Amino acid sequence: MTLAEDLLAPKVVALVGASADAAKNTGRPQRYLKKHGYAGRVIPINPARQEVQGERAWPSLAEAPGGIRHAFVMAPGDAVERALEDCGARGIPVMSVFSDGFADAGPGGMARQQRLAARAAALGVRVLGPNSMGVVNLSDRVPLTVNAVLEMDVLPVGGTSMVSQSGTMLGTVLSRGAARGLGFAKMVSLGNECDLGAGDVVDLLAEDAATQVILLFLETVRDAGRLAAAARKAHAAGKPVVAFKLGRSSLGEALARSHTGALAGTDAAMDAFFRDCGILRVDMLETLIEIAPLVAGRKPAALGRAPRMAVVTTTGGGAASVVDRLGTFGIEPVAPDAELRAKMEAIGVKLTDSPIVDLTMAGSSKQYAQVLDALLDSPACDGVLATVGSSAMFHPEHAVRPIMEAPRAAKPLGAFLTPQADRSLALLAEKGIAGFRTPEACADAFRAYFDWRAPRAIPALAVPVWPPGLPRAGTLDERQSLALFKELGIPVVESVAAVAPDFPHGLPYPVAAKILSPDIAHKTEAGGVALGIHGDAEFRARVAQLLEQVRSRRPGARIEGVLVQRMQRGLAEAIVGYRDDPLVGPTILLGAGGTLAELYKDFVLRLAPVSAEEAAEMIGRVTGLAIVRGYRGLPRGDLRALAQAVSALSRLALLPGRSVAEAEINPLIVDADGVVAVDGLAVLKT
Amino acid sequence: MTLAEDLLAPKVVALVGASADAAKNTGRPQRYLKKHGYAGRVIPINPARQEVQGERAWPSLAEAPGGIRHAFVMAPGDAVERALEDCGARGIPVMSVFSDGFADAGPGGMARQQRLAARAAALGVRVLGPNSMGVVNLSDRVPLTVNAVLEMDVLPVGGTSMVSQSGTMLGTVLSRGAARGLGFAKMVSLGNECDLGAGDVVDLLAEDAATQVILLFLETVRDAGRLAAAARKAHAAGKPVVAFKLGRSSLGEALARSHTGALAGTDAAMDAFFRDCGILRVDMLETLIEIAPLVAGRKPAALGRAPRMAVVTTTGGGAASVVDRLGTFGIEPVAPDAELRAKMEAIGVKLTDSPIVDLTMAGSSKQYAQVLDALLDSPACDGVLATVGSSAMFHPEHAVRPIMEAPRAAKPLGAFLTPQADRSLALLAEKGIAGFRTPEACADAFRAYFDWRAPRAIPALAVPVWPPGLPRAGTLDERQSLALFKELGIPVVESVAAVAPDFPHGLPYPVAAKILSPDIAHKTEAGGVALGIHGDAEFRARVAQLLEQVRSRRPGARIEGVLVQRMQRGLAEAIVGYRDDPLVGPTILLGAGGTLAELYKDFVLRLAPVSAEEAAEMIGRVTGLAIVRGYRGLPRGDLRALAQAVSALSRLALLPGRSVAEAEINPLIVDADGVVAVDGLAVLKT
Repeated sequence: MTLAEDLLAPKVVALVGASADAAKNTGRPQRYLKKHGYAGRVIPINPARQEVQGERAWPSLAEAPGGIRHAFVMAPGDAVERALEDCGARGIPVMSVFSDGFADAGPGGMARQQRLAARAAALGVRVLGPNSMGVVNLSDRVPLTVNAVLEMDVLPVGGTSMVSQSGTMLGTVLSRGAARGLGFAKMVSLGNECDLGAGDVVDLLAEDAATQVILLFLETVRDAGRLAAAARKAHAAGKPVVAFKLGRSSLGEALARSHTGALAGTDAAMDAFFRDCGILRVDMLETLIEIAPLVAGRKPAALGRAPRMAVVTTTGGGAASVVDRLGTFGIEPVAPDAELRAKMEAIGVKLTDSPIVDLTMAGSSKQYAQVLDALLDSPACDGVLATVGSSAMFHPEHAVRPIMEAPRAAKPLGAFLTPQADRSLALLAEKGIAGFRTPEACADAFRAYFDWRAPRAIPALAVPVWPPGLPRAGTLDERQSLALFKELGIPVVESVAAVAPDFPHGLPYPVAAKILSPDIAHKTEAGGVALGIHGDAEFRARVAQLLEQVRSRRPGARIEGVLVQRMQRGLAEAIVGYRDDPLVGPTILLGAGGTLAELYKDFVLRLAPVSAEEAAEMIGRVTGLAIVRGYRGLPRGDLRALAQAVSALSRLALLPGRSVAEAEINPLIVDADGVVAVDGLAVLKT
Repeated sequence: MTLAEDLLAPKVVALVGASADAAKNTGRPQRYLKKHGYAGRVIPINPARQEVQGERAWPSLAEAPGGIRHAFVMAPGDAVERALEDCGARGIPVMSVFSDGFADAGPGGMARQQRLAARAAALGVRVLGPNSMGVVNLSDRVPLTVNAVLEMDVLPVGGTSMVSQSGTMLGTVLSRGAARGLGFAKMVSLGNECDLGAGDVVDLLAEDAATQVILLFLETVRDAGRLAAAARKAHAAGKPVVAFKLGRSSLGEALARSHTGALAGTDAAMDAFFRDCGILRVDMLETLIEIAPLVAGRKPAALGRAPRMAVVTTTGGGAASVVDRLGTFGIEPVAPDAELRAKMEAIGVKLTDSPIVDLTMAGSSKQYAQVLDALLDSPACDGVLATVGSSAMFHPEHAVRPIMEAPRAAKPLGAFLTPQADRSLALLAEKGIAGFRTPEACADAFRAYFDWRAPRAIPALAVPVWPPGLPRAGTLDERQSLALFKELGIPVVESVAAVAPDFPHGLPYPVAAKILSPDIAHKTEAGGVALGIHGDAEFRARVAQLLEQVRSRRPGARIEGVLVQRMQRGLAEAIVGYRDDPLVGPTILLGAGGTLAELYKDFVLRLAPVSAEEAAEMIGRVTGLAIVRGYRGLPRGDLRALAQAVSALSRLALLPGRSVAEAEINPLIVDADGVVAVDGLAVLKT
């Protein structure tokens, strides 16, 4: 038997800590298995009773009959560890753990969890949880869970599966989906992921015949590599993966050290990660519930231009509320073209050139359907939105029939129903058509669809060589960092390290002088930078002033001299940052440079490495770099050189051992004929 | 009888164009009035029948019995105009018009509507519509509407009233509200607002005893002045007004002419308008439905610091999904303080210092209630969020009882229920406690509450004097504009208009030279600006080059000379703009200056005029001005002088006839000891 069978559809399950009180948490799984028609054998384990809920019970897994494929452990305290030993001894391949008191319970609990995981690995037992609500397999009727949502009398079966780090959210999605006719295949509560993680479960679902779309509810990502591989596998199998992930407003700052880190936070890295492995990310919880029919069986559109939506409606206000929201994402409604209008006129439907096609006065639902068909077939739009008013509440069949009968097209069709209209939503769901309760989730779903990209092919780039003489640990100072960047193929400013007492440098003026100190990462704040020095006399005076400032602001800092650089002027400044994100691994950041851009958090972040072509796409997405992209007739910067520099820095991801924790070029001066790195920093991992 | 009675609760209504077919749109009002227990008299008007739906019918209003207080007109074509004449002749004070073909039907329809409105005014008949779905008065059982939502068997009565420019949206809010136990007092479909507008209806509702909260669904604002006055009146009566307004992504560009206009668009002006008159603005449609209990009977908190929320939950994932969203608005969860923890410990509830109070393990719902009471009473938080998991679906009474029993506090309490749980939502609604279906609407509601401000007292500022010699029409050039700004009390750069052939100026170097032309508004794009000129020889060369550039780029432009200015250096640049917005009237904008800030659309906009204190608050909200607010130890700018300049420009709103359409100082140089306007433009209305 496979892991998939034993985890998701075991033939024999043991319930460790099963309560005789069917109302208790720990009494639920047995009751739910029976209620929902589980066809396998249930073995309650309860040291105090010989019978539990009408079934014979055994005192321990060790004493239970053979053949158990999955033990669901609810017993508290070290009963979990004992159950694991028994699983190992009895050859039970999978254990799910509802019990808490592990990573959820502070450092002591974390240590306990690590011991559990290590022991499970040694014994060859796969563990779901701890702190997991278990597995709800709807397609095979195996509701192995404590989740109270199973009180429902009828489980809605469908092609969507869900993997969740929150057990409650399984219930949320299941109950809300059921209310509007959306069904599910498998739902898995991951808990603390001490062994089986999101990636493992997605991997199984990618092979699951009953699963067409995979939903993720994530609070963090603990197994980025496995999840990425599984998402790629699911994509290859034609199964879209959709994520709703929390953490958009926290964590980032605490994790950040350099300016880059502060800019990027972790959520931007998470975005880049999802994009990289072809996962759609939704912004709203209800989008996660409603999006499956919109993406099932579809491929990313990847238009390379602003998406255009056709909109048909019988309610102006309803359509406007979705269109308004779509507009904030840069998705604009488009009027039917002349050809389509002529075609419709031939069948008696007069359309205007308004981008919202009002069919209130269309003679019949047949005509409505014909317009919809024609739009789904038209090359002039990339998606179709149908909105329906009050009739969806009182005359569901009539109101949504033309939408239900729309042919399955390559482009997505979604419907927003303005009233309370669960029955109409269910009719659409039956036909696999995406229905939305709110204009916001509807717009969010189309936005996520149009943002969707196929998993990225990792570019084949040369592995960098570590420059001879450069340290292999600690923080590289500006001079060392520039040497590293130069080795990567990035043009760096001409500079000389000058030492006391006379600080000779031999460079032509104007120059800049910057303090050289292993103890000062941010030289400007320390008063350690002098720009625009025009001659020897000024040089001597400014360097003296600079040393005095630094000594007063950072009394303990070791000062090795000053770095003298030729002053560089250009059309714009950029910041390029590399960071090995603790969750998703190497990332590359490109932002507009300068204090203002820092305030606006104007940057684009991708997983590293990136090719020059990918870097060029990044450049196009940095708002502030518009000033070198031809904005208002300003002179254009050398975007090719900029893209090459970004790609070059991203190659740090290829270093053996990924030895660089973070690196930053700030600023990279962009001129009409090249770029040059003027300042930078690199932090190594050891 | 009052307008309120005749519009919202007429004793005798005529239905003009009433159909004998009760299923037709035009048959509905009569059917709905009967179905929902209208106690007054209904008079159907139908030229073809003597009886309609069991009631005696009359061929016209002219022939109908007396005493009609409100005629609801559904008849097409010029029957509307005939009905109006009859209303005038018969002394019928109010006419609602469902019929379309007016402003909704292009320029011809608009002219027809203007004639209708003029004639109604002459006759003394008040008109709702045309293109209105009518009035749904739930508190007095007067469902005078064609809206199909009235097919509902039981109308949910409550203290929330709604005014909508979309008839469909009345049905949306009514049906969705009803499904979760939310009731309504009065709902009015405005249609095209040829006479009675949003402001008029809000004014009536401010006096309506059954109305506690007023909701607005707006696609535009046609009567800003009346709406503002009505909103202020409602606020004074303790009735919060909440708006959901479309148009966040369009219109602006088309209306814009100057840079300021392009930055500001119209939606920012709308935001400023709502804020100014104490209207809460929500971002999501469901927030509009759900927010009423959160704000009913409350005053704006106006904290002057980031809001702090206490969060109690029995589901980690559920709480996290709201908290994550709140965090993106800068609203942070706060842990119970030591005092509160000690108090709870005394009654046996052990709380941690986690900002999310997990009560899953609380012994009883009594303890849950005690924690809630204590938090509602605690000065350490500004609002309380309670989230409930699956139990809200299957055991509503048990799950939400402690929340239902929470005392009414000055601070708001809101609940997010994770599962499909309409019954639990209804229980909360019964007790006047805000329940939310989605984490996003829940967070949006708290955000709107904390953003809420009491209507602003218009500052008493001096009326400006128009500088002698300045034109009263057309566009003022830079020199004239600077003269206007100077008259307002804004420091302006020292400058001299220099003319061919020698362009003498007498200013000390360095200087800037700018083309003087009545035909060139944006001098930089025309190549008409030379900065940083250091001596006479350079001046002559640069001016010659500048003239050549302008002649080549703008061949037809009249050139009057060059404006020579002392070069100003400062710590930062700001842009200050004044614009008489076509919808909401005078507005004042403050933004960070320069090309980058323009790209980032970094500005704050308020209704004009503003006091220096209000301008100081605006300064604090412009991201890019952080560089003169002490960011990263950078030197501070003279924010007092900046605030005075913003207030001074805003006084253009006080000019007789509001003769300035728009004016812009760009840039205003901000230095450590003052500000100076370096360039600008003003466009007069005539």
